[in-house]
Amino acid sequence: MSKKIPYRFYLSEDQMPKQWYNLRADMKEQPDPLLNPATLQPLKEEDLYPIFCKELAHQEMDSETRYIDIPEEIQEMYKIYRPSPLIRAYNLEKELDTPAKIYYKFEGNNTSGSHKLNSAIAQAYYAKKQGLTSLTTETGAGQWGTALSEACAYFGIPLTVYMVKCSYEQKPFRKAVMQTFDADVIPSPSDTTVVGRKILAENPGTTGSLGCAISEAVEKATTTEGCRYVLGSVLNQVLLHQSVIGLEAKTAMELLEEYPDVVVGCAGGGSNLGGLIAPFMRDKIVDNKNIRIVAVEPASCPSFTRGKYAYDFCDTGMVTPMAKMYTLGSGFIPSANHAGGLRYHGMSPILSKLYHDGLMEAVSYEQTKVFEAAKLFARVETILPAPESSHAIKGAIDEALKCKETGEEKTILFGLTGTGYFDMTAYSAFHDGTMIDYIPTDEDLQKGFDKLPKIDR
Amino acid sequence: MSKKIPYRFYLSEDQMPKQWYNLRADMKEQPDPLLNPATLQPLKEEDLYPIFCKELAHQEMDSETRYIDIPEEIQEMYKIYRPSPLIRAYNLEKELDTPAKIYYKFEGNNTSGSHKLNSAIAQAYYAKKQGLTSLTTETGAGQWGTALSEACAYFGIPLTVYMVKCSYEQKPFRKAVMQTFDADVIPSPSDTTVVGRKILAENPGTTGSLGCAISEAVEKATTTEGCRYVLGSVLNQVLLHQSVIGLEAKTAMELLEEYPDVVVGCAGGGSNLGGLIAPFMRDKIVDNKNIRIVAVEPASCPSFTRGKYAYDFCDTGMVTPMAKMYTLGSGFIPSANHAGGLRYHGMSPILSKLYHDGLMEAVSYEQTKVFEAAKLFARVETILPAPESSHAIKGAIDEALKCKETGEEKTILFGLTGTGYFDMTAYSAFHDGTMIDYIPTDEDLQKGFDKLPKIDR
Repeated sequence: MSKKIPYRFYLSEDQMPKQWYNLRADMKEQPDPLLNPATLQPLKEEDLYPIFCKELAHQEMDSETRYIDIPEEIQEMYKIYRPSPLIRAYNLEKELDTPAKIYYKFEGNNTSGSHKLNSAIAQAYYAKKQGLTSLTTETGAGQWGTALSEACAYFGIPLTVYMVKCSYEQKPFRKAVMQTFDADVIPSPSDTTVVGRKILAENPGTTGSLGCAISEAVEKATTTEGCRYVLGSVLNQVLLHQSVIGLEAKTAMELLEEYPDVVVGCAGGGSNLGGLIAPFMRDKIVDNKNIRIVAVEPASCPSFTRGKYAYDFCDTGMVTPMAKMYTLGSGFIPSANHAGGLRYHGMSPILSKLYHDGLMEAVSYEQTKVFEAAKLFARVETILPAPESSHAIKGAIDEALKCKETGEEKTILFGLTGTGYFDMTAYSAFHDGTMIDYIPTDEDLQKGFDKLPKIDR
Repeated sequence: MSKKIPYRFYLSEDQMPKQWYNLRADMKEQPDPLLNPATLQPLKEEDLYPIFCKELAHQEMDSETRYIDIPEEIQEMYKIYRPSPLIRAYNLEKELDTPAKIYYKFEGNNTSGSHKLNSAIAQAYYAKKQGLTSLTTETGAGQWGTALSEACAYFGIPLTVYMVKCSYEQKPFRKAVMQTFDADVIPSPSDTTVVGRKILAENPGTTGSLGCAISEAVEKATTTEGCRYVLGSVLNQVLLHQSVIGLEAKTAMELLEEYPDVVVGCAGGGSNLGGLIAPFMRDKIVDNKNIRIVAVEPASCPSFTRGKYAYDFCDTGMVTPMAKMYTLGSGFIPSANHAGGLRYHGMSPILSKLYHDGLMEAVSYEQTKVFEAAKLFARVETILPAPESSHAIKGAIDEALKCKETGEEKTILFGLTGTGYFDMTAYSAFHDGTMIDYIPTDEDLQKGFDKLPKIDR
């Protein structure tokens, strides 16, 4: 085992990216545009101003500017917790007895516990710069809410977080972290919004969903003076901000004289995957690099592998614009025993387009298999991974085992998005043998597809 | 604000320490020896063999070897999560408007969430090397138990953890993390030991104490074939292993052309403080460096600031050797509303001796003041600190504010031992205003002092 390459490799501050990379500028075909749900016409930048602050609305629509400067203030906050390490998984390689070289980019070493902070900082900064006086968002597993709470506390903007009710109740400590950063955390659905009251009236016992929390947060933002909404995934702007992950990873690998044959990432709404793969996908598109990109998703929420590529609402309450994406239908809610995040019904329009065009692959795993991989990884690599991140671990392990069969010395890069400290209920269920796998039937999924908006574009 | 010095500074792998530093070799006067409680005679190395594995018994007694090679296997595991960053607290400096330069060595970026892993790895390794087949330990706040679970899983040694019952019940997630690493976690006092059954019979409602859990773990180790006991603090061997913290910090500061005027660390049993200060205390003793060393402890468990320097048992059950140390009496249990660790009745004999000889200072703070500092720190530095670590933050802030008064541009280094993800109950209590400060009265303390063994040495 050569030790020229260290276990952990950190860029220096001056090697950190000073620009985000906008993959859309290099895509041969663009994702279909967002639609106004009332007119079914493509949205213009101005149409987004009531929801997003102006700079973010601009970034959302900007498919031309290839590199976008990271403002100095954001770079400064990045430096507090970045660069994140690129780690060579020597011990995992040894455990698997694989000829493959496995690297992972670990984004969990910050208090939000995940990569979500990369976009939260950008969104809070631009809101502050525009003079906004408050923000709203939603959170499911809690990582995004925590990240945005941190960013808003740092820049001094009050934040209201609509937290999916089942998470709010099951994860009181997540809530407590957000409150430490002075966020106002409200269980969703709530009686603070019209849409929340409507959902509660129709289904009083509901424990909420991400799509429903989004509806509430958007309503609150659009009906409050000086307030805007921010979202931690799915959006083009989020993938742009998250490109810092891939840019750092690529620079680090270049310095180590390495380049991946396969890049593996977990996919919920696509924020981590889109950020991680951005510069590698560029190489594939622009330079015809022979590189495989693999999205890993839960079998319980299989938007890539079993969803439809269609226009759909981004939320349950159908108040948001419509996006063309792989979707299970905006009413889809994963089974209650689904652990962790990756529970969104849709998928980033950028990633959806790339997948649709055959530029990336997708696989899905049942959660007990994912937790087996998580436990193995924790033992040999000493990091307790988040359930979401463990999907990528499982995907990378399977790639490495394929190399063992074929004898190929491939280089595998995967994204380890975060830590699992707030997911111990799920780990305990796995440990006790009470964790259940749930895979929706074709009939289950058909119900969601039947409710997709009928749009002929 | 000069940016020549980065926010985060990491040594490269080849700059990491290859030897631990044994401060005793440079102390002008040695700590008093451990005593056999039956004979009151100084212990010999062999006397420790029933409790500790041989190499660790040797390290415990070795006051002469200045530098001790870190075995290759331990260095390899260190490289998985080390070096830990030396962080320049630019934002904290700005927030305090102080001319002081503040640095902190952050040990929380590993799954145990603290510096404890540094010694856990060493102790698990030596046990494995000796062919031992199991280990026992105790844990209070849970960081040590987590760290040792990780290390034992890595080296493949079964581990039993006696977890103080109130922690076991209040922190189910800590227990779940240990179980993920396959540790057997038992609430203490338990009916698995003679001493546990005795304590339960005398006080059926007890929620346990660290001293009591130590008694159980030691009994279990000494009555089980091929089993030994390991401890995460207080001991000389632990301070030796933890010297990696101070050595890395000193090397990093040298590379940045910096040197601390003041070093601040939290003190419970002394593992972090002893490790952090080791090379700086050397400079003070050997090179007459003008450097202040400040221990920060909770006002609710004030062993340095209000304890007696006397021989005492290291455990409640009085089954361990006796050590000369600052102690509140082996029966002392901090108030139930005391948050986090730093709850041990005694203090490292090495640190006790240094303090007694005037080579270091100590201060104590009430916990609400500590959590105020923690919250401020989280907002500006974006790390959610452990309650223990927050004592050091509070100490460093007060040093920096003194500099603001005097205008002195001192360089302050403090140890940020870990993260507070498992301490959100305490954070919530602080947030809700229900956190209470409890300071023992002189009468309370006198009761503990009255029970100290009468030893005339």
